[in-house]
Amino acid sequence: MEIKDILSRYQDDLRHVEENLDKYYRSYIELIPEVTDYIINSGGKRLRPLLLMITSDLCGFTGERRYTLAAVMEFLHTASLLHDDVIDHAETRRGRTAANNIWGNPASVLVGDFLYSQAFKLMVEDGHPPIQKLLTSAAITMVEGETAQLIRSRDTDITEDEYLRIIEQKTAILISASCALGALLAKVSKKKVNALRTFGLKLGVAFQVTDDTLDYVATKEEFGKAIGMDLKEGKITLPLIRTLHNCSTDERTLIKETLDRNDLDGNHIRDITSLIEKYDGINYALTKAKGFIDEAKSALKPFDDSFPKDALMTISDYILKRRL
Amino acid sequence: MEIKDILSRYQDDLRHVEENLDKYYRSYIELIPEVTDYIINSGGKRLRPLLLMITSDLCGFTGERRYTLAAVMEFLHTASLLHDDVIDHAETRRGRTAANNIWGNPASVLVGDFLYSQAFKLMVEDGHPPIQKLLTSAAITMVEGETAQLIRSRDTDITEDEYLRIIEQKTAILISASCALGALLAKVSKKKVNALRTFGLKLGVAFQVTDDTLDYVATKEEFGKAIGMDLKEGKITLPLIRTLHNCSTDERTLIKETLDRNDLDGNHIRDITSLIEKYDGINYALTKAKGFIDEAKSALKPFDDSFPKDALMTISDYILKRRL
Repeated sequence: MEIKDILSRYQDDLRHVEENLDKYYRSYIELIPEVTDYIINSGGKRLRPLLLMITSDLCGFTGERRYTLAAVMEFLHTASLLHDDVIDHAETRRGRTAANNIWGNPASVLVGDFLYSQAFKLMVEDGHPPIQKLLTSAAITMVEGETAQLIRSRDTDITEDEYLRIIEQKTAILISASCALGALLAKVSKKKVNALRTFGLKLGVAFQVTDDTLDYVATKEEFGKAIGMDLKEGKITLPLIRTLHNCSTDERTLIKETLDRNDLDGNHIRDITSLIEKYDGINYALTKAKGFIDEAKSALKPFDDSFPKDALMTISDYILKRRL
Repeated sequence: MEIKDILSRYQDDLRHVEENLDKYYRSYIELIPEVTDYIINSGGKRLRPLLLMITSDLCGFTGERRYTLAAVMEFLHTASLLHDDVIDHAETRRGRTAANNIWGNPASVLVGDFLYSQAFKLMVEDGHPPIQKLLTSAAITMVEGETAQLIRSRDTDITEDEYLRIIEQKTAILISASCALGALLAKVSKKKVNALRTFGLKLGVAFQVTDDTLDYVATKEEFGKAIGMDLKEGKITLPLIRTLHNCSTDERTLIKETLDRNDLDGNHIRDITSLIEKYDGINYALTKAKGFIDEAKSALKPFDDSFPKDALMTISDYILKRRL
């Protein structure tokens, strides 16, 4: 199975999702749909809605509610992106000027708040307490993960376990909830709900670990272009954590001093990348990601073979391969 | 009846509210309770929880749920303050250094997000759809009002009606919801729910109009100290809107030019204050506020005389008198 086979099967569903997204961020305050339009149609992969469509299919739920809940997941995700870009003083997002850089921080904060509120309003209207509890808890965990990341910014003492916990919270929890939603909608056994929850959590961690390696790996292909953005923002990710763990005291001091600079440039980033290469930090991270993908796939054991199960397997493998 | 009589009757309730507040903003991420502690215990008047206690009393509801919902209202309010201060680059709040000025904008954005999410989680756990719908709609309206205010910043063409609509949304809607909650909890007639909703809306508008006059009136008492903050932030409020409506073309030009300055100082603020005095802008605004208070009190007609009804009347009058 290829990704195109998956997109082909779910193309009608994804079209319904787009229609719902479009419908639910209307506001008579024109700035709100204007900013939302910009970020929500900036080439996001709709990973969370797609996972919700596939897990609904896997568990046998075909109701309209999955389209509304897909909008909820995408709104929670988009709201967090808008706020993250304010927090990180982001200049770009997905290769385009970041929203905060066009409309300013105040607009990004408020439109993020609007999308959070709209997501909660839609889930309240959906009216199913187990789903509401899953999603409000996920939102809190996500914010806690982002706050933990902020606190550990530029902290070279961060351990691999702490890093993994942070990305599980800030990224994986929402992906996990998207997968569990399909099972909750179909009202299948608790065992299957938990299986999909675990699948999504492991997939989400692998997704973020892989994504974090791209911040360094991109150097080889397109040197000079938005490389080392995480480093500039003080985010210490797995390749560097591995390097910090294995390098000499002098090298550790160099890394620390580089992270504390306000004038981080291409040369500094190159210094760090060289050290990461020396200690094989990228391969270490990708091997870890592969391990999480294996765990994700194993979690699907309670499900019989089917197109949607195969689709989840295919997406898992794709997470590792994309852009690498 | 005096305010102290009201505080005396509801002191036990307000103590329960404080306990709930304290309980619900715990997080293992220490920065979250640290920032929340700071802003939530910075001398806020707990107006929304108090109104919820009084309207519950008025309608005969004595259950524990009112304490949780009071925390929900205070969290929504506090979250909006944290984000507002980021948006306005606020230096102070309630006479103390603003949270964003101590912990930085990222912490204020994220702790605000945490409090929004926690408020929605608590209302989901409360489990009553009519209340959930009231509060999620109120949250959206509040954000829309704040966004409208942002858009109309420094816009001297803003009309009195537009200003009133913005403050109804950004401020009054949450106060209105706090009042309606008491009626919804007690499951009284729709007529009484709407009466309290209207009461809260008019009270909230009067509250904000009065608050906006303080930005100018304070000049007389404590000149040079945090005066004209709204002006610096580009917020055009009723005293100035009235002045813009009645002044000469030259005066209008002066006001416009002053608002566009980046180096607004005491002299510029004095120029504007003089014009507002010339056109009696403060008294005009306070007379308007008085009119809204009269409407608020009239809305209480469906209720028989009682201590809580008298308390709502007393608070209404107090809104006009405070600090003036």
